Amino acid sequence: MKVQNVMEIVVKDVIEKYKKELNMSCTCDHCMNDVLAMTLNNLSPQYIVDEANSAYIRAIHQADRQGATAILTKVAWAAGVVAENPRCENVKNPSNE
Amino acid sequence: MKVQNVMEIVVKDVIEKYKKELNMSCTCDHCMNDVLAMTLNNLSPQYIVDEANSAYIRAIHQADRQGATAILTKVAWAAGVVAENPRCENVKNPSNE
Repeated sequence: MKVQNVMEIVVKDVIEKYKKELNMSCTCDHCMNDVLAMTLNNLSPQYIVDEANSAYIRAIHQADRQGATAILTKVAWAAGVVAENPRCENVKNPSNE
Repeated sequence: MKVQNVMEIVVKDVIEKYKKELNMSCTCDHCMNDVLAMTLNNLSPQYIVDEANSAYIRAIHQADRQGATAILTKVAWAAGVVAENPRCENVKNPSNE
């Protein structure tokens, strides 16, 4: 069985677009995956069967200013949580300083 | 970026386990994907970053009788909707008979 949550694409687009503005101390794959997973866990999924529709739904999200702002707000929240509690090895644990 | 919604695995398990009991007129890939997508759109996602954890979370769901029943209820609902309105070619449209 093969389905896809279009919100994965939409949130990845938002994270890539605003990566710099998120001001994260670490932007390694692990940290960015944590931001993506946390954001997706706070959004209603939008699963589709026909991959052909994903470009169409992605475009709808890009045109939807209000929706995009809501997603960016959740990405910024997740980025804040991850920046405070990085699980990756790159960033020395702030509390040990 | 690579994340996974563990609910995809959990729901696939439930669909495979109860496929016969769902009494669907058509069980082609397209119809089963429609059931999977509709069910997932009605469940809170559970995205993880470390794939190693998916087996662990899957086991939690299998042990969680109440949770499994809730998922089965949603799968049965989705199967009913898909059986009523199959989008695949295999089943002649019931309303034309």
